[in-house]
Amino acid sequence: MAKDLQIALLLDFYGEMLTEKQRTFLEYYYDDDLSLAEIAENEGITRQGVRDAIKRAEGQLLDMENRLGLVKRFEDMKTGLNSINDCAVKISEENMRVGLSREISDLTVKIRMLVKELSED
Amino acid sequence: MAKDLQIALLLDFYGEMLTEKQRTFLEYYYDDDLSLAEIAENEGITRQGVRDAIKRAEGQLLDMENRLGLVKRFEDMKTGLNSINDCAVKISEENMRVGLSREISDLTVKIRMLVKELSED
Repeated sequence: MAKDLQIALLLDFYGEMLTEKQRTFLEYYYDDDLSLAEIAENEGITRQGVRDAIKRAEGQLLDMENRLGLVKRFEDMKTGLNSINDCAVKISEENMRVGLSREISDLTVKIRMLVKELSED
Repeated sequence: MAKDLQIALLLDFYGEMLTEKQRTFLEYYYDDDLSLAEIAENEGITRQGVRDAIKRAEGQLLDMENRLGLVKRFEDMKTGLNSINDCAVKISEENMRVGLSREISDLTVKIRMLVKELSED
């Protein structure tokens, strides 16, 4: 995974364990794509100060994932949900091929909706 | 949810953010069902000391869940997975009723295995 994407994901999961200032810096940097110089100017501190704060916050996020592994757990969950979705699609196709039960068709739609809801959580 | 069960679940998710000593006390108390007095004797500290340490550790676990909500996210996921399982069971029953496609039968088994794997994560 690209490093930026990984940090953004960690921020989504663990961001509330950081201080508000740390979270603000990371959001400026990763979500709003501001440069270190722009953040420094906004916050009235040095560019090096911003860089240090971001590095420290990233370190904390990575440490939390190393300890708890919850982002990985959710990513594994999404992979499994995609496989379930594939099965539902195949059931639907086979159901159309062999003779169309309306109930089976409805149930595959329901599975796919549940997968979608859970994947967006 | 019973308070003990909730703490045990929080410990499973967030335990690695506690100190080793905090984790040990909670595991003695919740997983091994030792009394405060027994833990105090094992550890060579007062019963009150054990009680305070456990209360503090529980507070940290609850604070983490209040901030991050990841136990709730996983519990919601399990509820959704149960619904998916119910749909797979109904598809299987309907498939038997209307004329038995082997492929649909195999696919419902696969969905139920995936749900089982994901629920145990």
